[in-house]
Amino acid sequence: MGEALNGLRRTMMCGELREEHVSQKVTVMGWVQRKRNLGGLVFIDLRDRTGILQVMFGEEINKEAFEKADLAKSEYCIAVTGEMVRRESPNNNIPTGMVELKGESIKILSESETPPIYIKENLDAAENIRLKYRYLDLRRPDMQNIFMIRNKANKIVRDYLDENGFLEMETPMLTKSTPEGARDYLVPSRNYPGMFYALPQSPQIFKQLLMVSGFDKYYQIVKCFRDEDLRANRQPEFTQIDLEMSFVEVDDVIALNEGLIKKVFKEIKGIDVQLPIKRMPFKEAMEKYGSDKPDLRFGMEIKNITDAVKGSEFAVFKNAIANGGSVRALTVEGASDMGRKKIDKLGEFVKTYKAKGLAWIACKEEEIKSPIAKFFSEEEMQNLLNAAGAKVGDLVLIVADVDNIVLQSLGALRLEIAKQLEILKDNNEFNFVWITEFPLLEYDEEEKRHVALHHPFTCPMDEDLELLEVDPLSVRAKAYDIVLNGEELGGGSIRIHDTKLQQKMFELLGFSKESAWERFGFLLEAFKYGPPPHGGLAYGFDRMVMFLAGTDNIKDVIAFPKNQNAYCPMSEAPNLVDDKQLQELCIKTDVKKEEN
Amino acid sequence: MGEALNGLRRTMMCGELREEHVSQKVTVMGWVQRKRNLGGLVFIDLRDRTGILQVMFGEEINKEAFEKADLAKSEYCIAVTGEMVRRESPNNNIPTGMVELKGESIKILSESETPPIYIKENLDAAENIRLKYRYLDLRRPDMQNIFMIRNKANKIVRDYLDENGFLEMETPMLTKSTPEGARDYLVPSRNYPGMFYALPQSPQIFKQLLMVSGFDKYYQIVKCFRDEDLRANRQPEFTQIDLEMSFVEVDDVIALNEGLIKKVFKEIKGIDVQLPIKRMPFKEAMEKYGSDKPDLRFGMEIKNITDAVKGSEFAVFKNAIANGGSVRALTVEGASDMGRKKIDKLGEFVKTYKAKGLAWIACKEEEIKSPIAKFFSEEEMQNLLNAAGAKVGDLVLIVADVDNIVLQSLGALRLEIAKQLEILKDNNEFNFVWITEFPLLEYDEEEKRHVALHHPFTCPMDEDLELLEVDPLSVRAKAYDIVLNGEELGGGSIRIHDTKLQQKMFELLGFSKESAWERFGFLLEAFKYGPPPHGGLAYGFDRMVMFLAGTDNIKDVIAFPKNQNAYCPMSEAPNLVDDKQLQELCIKTDVKKEEN
Repeated sequence: MGEALNGLRRTMMCGELREEHVSQKVTVMGWVQRKRNLGGLVFIDLRDRTGILQVMFGEEINKEAFEKADLAKSEYCIAVTGEMVRRESPNNNIPTGMVELKGESIKILSESETPPIYIKENLDAAENIRLKYRYLDLRRPDMQNIFMIRNKANKIVRDYLDENGFLEMETPMLTKSTPEGARDYLVPSRNYPGMFYALPQSPQIFKQLLMVSGFDKYYQIVKCFRDEDLRANRQPEFTQIDLEMSFVEVDDVIALNEGLIKKVFKEIKGIDVQLPIKRMPFKEAMEKYGSDKPDLRFGMEIKNITDAVKGSEFAVFKNAIANGGSVRALTVEGASDMGRKKIDKLGEFVKTYKAKGLAWIACKEEEIKSPIAKFFSEEEMQNLLNAAGAKVGDLVLIVADVDNIVLQSLGALRLEIAKQLEILKDNNEFNFVWITEFPLLEYDEEEKRHVALHHPFTCPMDEDLELLEVDPLSVRAKAYDIVLNGEELGGGSIRIHDTKLQQKMFELLGFSKESAWERFGFLLEAFKYGPPPHGGLAYGFDRMVMFLAGTDNIKDVIAFPKNQNAYCPMSEAPNLVDDKQLQELCIKTDVKKEEN
Repeated sequence: MGEALNGLRRTMMCGELREEHVSQKVTVMGWVQRKRNLGGLVFIDLRDRTGILQVMFGEEINKEAFEKADLAKSEYCIAVTGEMVRRESPNNNIPTGMVELKGESIKILSESETPPIYIKENLDAAENIRLKYRYLDLRRPDMQNIFMIRNKANKIVRDYLDENGFLEMETPMLTKSTPEGARDYLVPSRNYPGMFYALPQSPQIFKQLLMVSGFDKYYQIVKCFRDEDLRANRQPEFTQIDLEMSFVEVDDVIALNEGLIKKVFKEIKGIDVQLPIKRMPFKEAMEKYGSDKPDLRFGMEIKNITDAVKGSEFAVFKNAIANGGSVRALTVEGASDMGRKKIDKLGEFVKTYKAKGLAWIACKEEEIKSPIAKFFSEEEMQNLLNAAGAKVGDLVLIVADVDNIVLQSLGALRLEIAKQLEILKDNNEFNFVWITEFPLLEYDEEEKRHVALHHPFTCPMDEDLELLEVDPLSVRAKAYDIVLNGEELGGGSIRIHDTKLQQKMFELLGFSKESAWERFGFLLEAFKYGPPPHGGLAYGFDRMVMFLAGTDNIKDVIAFPKNQNAYCPMSEAPNLVDDKQLQELCIKTDVKKEEN
């Protein structure tokens, strides 16, 4: 059992000590990063949240302290009191490297077994071990730094929104299951056997109701839940910066959020985000980059070469065009020497996006090399290359199909090529863009109905209102996403605030009037009583912190994350519960316990 | 359908307008509180979050606006543009009462049906109606004010903790069921059929692990969950200000929190809390006030009169003392004339606390009146009255039994009498006290075992460590509650940070080594690796806001609360879910749907 503090108080943090503290008496507390016994001297690197301080114990300084210090091992938790002195051989690698602490007394507050993982930066241990011993993994300075960044971002966001008149308000966690969207986590009710609460996928409806209540500007940094199969960088519970404003239009929400983004990235990354952030309509993003979250740190835009190849006899192009599709190309600069094997692999790659194949043209110095060259006259080929913006030395990659497939496959191919060619290797840019004018609806082939691209509360653009009846898929929404380096940082919209329009929207989504009212009746009811125009936005806070901390693993920015099976190797959640607990909830599990 | 903003921007909030704005052109937006048509003039009281502004429309100002304004009804949402003018007949009851807005144009942004509840202060509507139309209830200025107070308290707490080096960190919501304490809300796992997550009752274990991780100072304002039968002022989900510090002892945690309390109550209530806040050991609180959360705004202390009545022949007293119990009294000043009926009712009252009866002595001017007077000599009676601190005009109320029953019943009686006599009627005091030195354990008669008075991680006092084996019930804990006006505002403790002591504690609680490891193994495991001494505190944030807002109903401080059955009359949660959802989770409900 360790020694008690018994009134001993820490006076300084390890990482704070500098030459100005020389000859002061201090008490520091922390963990033994490293201990060396050099004969009559024991050196301990003592670590706390702020950094590392060298502590020296000597038989001649204090024999008892020296002997006790020599008992300390890695990760022992100790307290040391003594005088700060100038170091004989300074260490320029750490901020405290000019000084050291002459340990006059030491308390071993607690001992440590040999830790199963190293407490050091850039640890290369298996993820399941890191997650099982998460409390040790979190001792590593790079992990500590991430959570200090997260804390700071949190504070900056709150301060900014507070200054701008937003009220932090809490919405319920035990709420109603509304099976539109992702799968809900359910919570059985004890008072109403057979009924369930759902954990919120977002506070969407509640924040809209707060606007109906006249709170004017709301925000919350809040946990949301989705019971989906976990892909990389998805967690069952994640954190949103959620905000909503009344009496606003698209430009107002965007302006407010540009201020927020500028402040966060300035104060944490030292980056000056130029305002206004550029905007790009969804259609342009799709046509140029094949994506609604285009990475604009590099060009390589998709070119529509349909017109240029219209006359060609090449059946694939001909058929695609005849079927209302298009022919589009990516021109990879200086890649005319790419090997056949590599190109074939790219062909396989686009097939995962439902493209039937990838045509290619290598504009070599001496010749045009291409399996499809034979289908084109010299003039036709030149027209094609001009349309593709290709010059000598480039490689042109072409997909012909219906627009959706062409754009999605070329969009993915563009990113894949950038990765293969390491185009972004030394790129430190933070390239923001607002994507606007999203389609309101898309057609879900599986469910054979329209679904909302964002969510069913998104307001159509005024210009397109009359298309709602005649051509709903062409209606654009007052929706906007903020995209950074090809990742969606957040998104939002101006909401419908009219019962009739909201009902119309539910109709378009294939809900009967009854089922719409059963699910969202309280929102429709609320809209009867003078709802204000309103809109908002939600950021994925975890993803924002990933950018700020420079990590591409979401688990790094969550203190106690789950693994891919939504399991916590540390606490071993989920687990079996007592039968009594299930009886009280009137539920039975459908599996025998032995199966587990 | 209402009119669109179409680029119209709000320039001022209603409640901000003053004489300095006279002759400025402004645009305000809000809700119609009241409309009057006085012939050629329409007056609208326009309401937003900040207050009410009078808007005047006239045929001569702008005929079109005048006519449209006359269409507006209560709770219509409108936008008005015009010039600020000085009011001919000022209204001194509202801050904007010197001015009014001459409405030159108006947009009806949305219409309203007649609201089912009045939008006014101190509404006396049935609670279920208020909850069903919560979005309208929240429009009332007193409710708006509460949530502005809540937001402000939130900000003050965060700023204070940030200044003091605390990191805001998030702990998981989907965690492990640990059936020690209240009933968990469970969440079925889809990936592990038959297994469950639990929603946290508090982040206790996780915050301790963050201390093991070296984060040093943690806080979070966080939702917690308990599936208990709801008494008044309990909600299934509630919010805690949760904090934890490393390398600290009781005095450090208390000092940090006194600073927090002082700041919050100063900035919101304008009250100077005198520091240090007084401290009272649990034993003293129980002996003097019969409660571990004593209301110190009034005296009426419980007096131990056992010694004074030792010699009496009164069997009830004699037996109680012989059985190791005690005889104690409450002296109610100036209540000697209380009627027999009232006193009998107090007798009934204490019986609900298991007291067998209530003896009484009325010290009237002319005589001592008491059914038990005959058992006492004049001298004995005088000794009793002296011990009870009674003087002429007072009423002495006495219970004799085992200490627990005597103290609890007299403690409750003390509060009941204060209520009946309206002792606190005009009392505006905020009387804080730390209750310290709580017992570590208490004996649970039902479960026939020791249970932790706070929780199983609370550290025993060093002085009492050796009693753990021989007399565990007499061991005091390093625990502290902050009590305000008889209500627990928060509580915490220094934690055990030693695996062996923690295991010992689990043994005392009747856990086998296996079951302790099964439930809390990851904490015990973590303690093997140099845990720091640490402690913390958690406030009931909802209760804190109740004090700050001056309401005694917890539902007033939660935007979307549940009713007593943990049901939300607005969203109708919990509800039935699709069979498909249950199938995916491999659970079945034990009730037929028709039963619901």
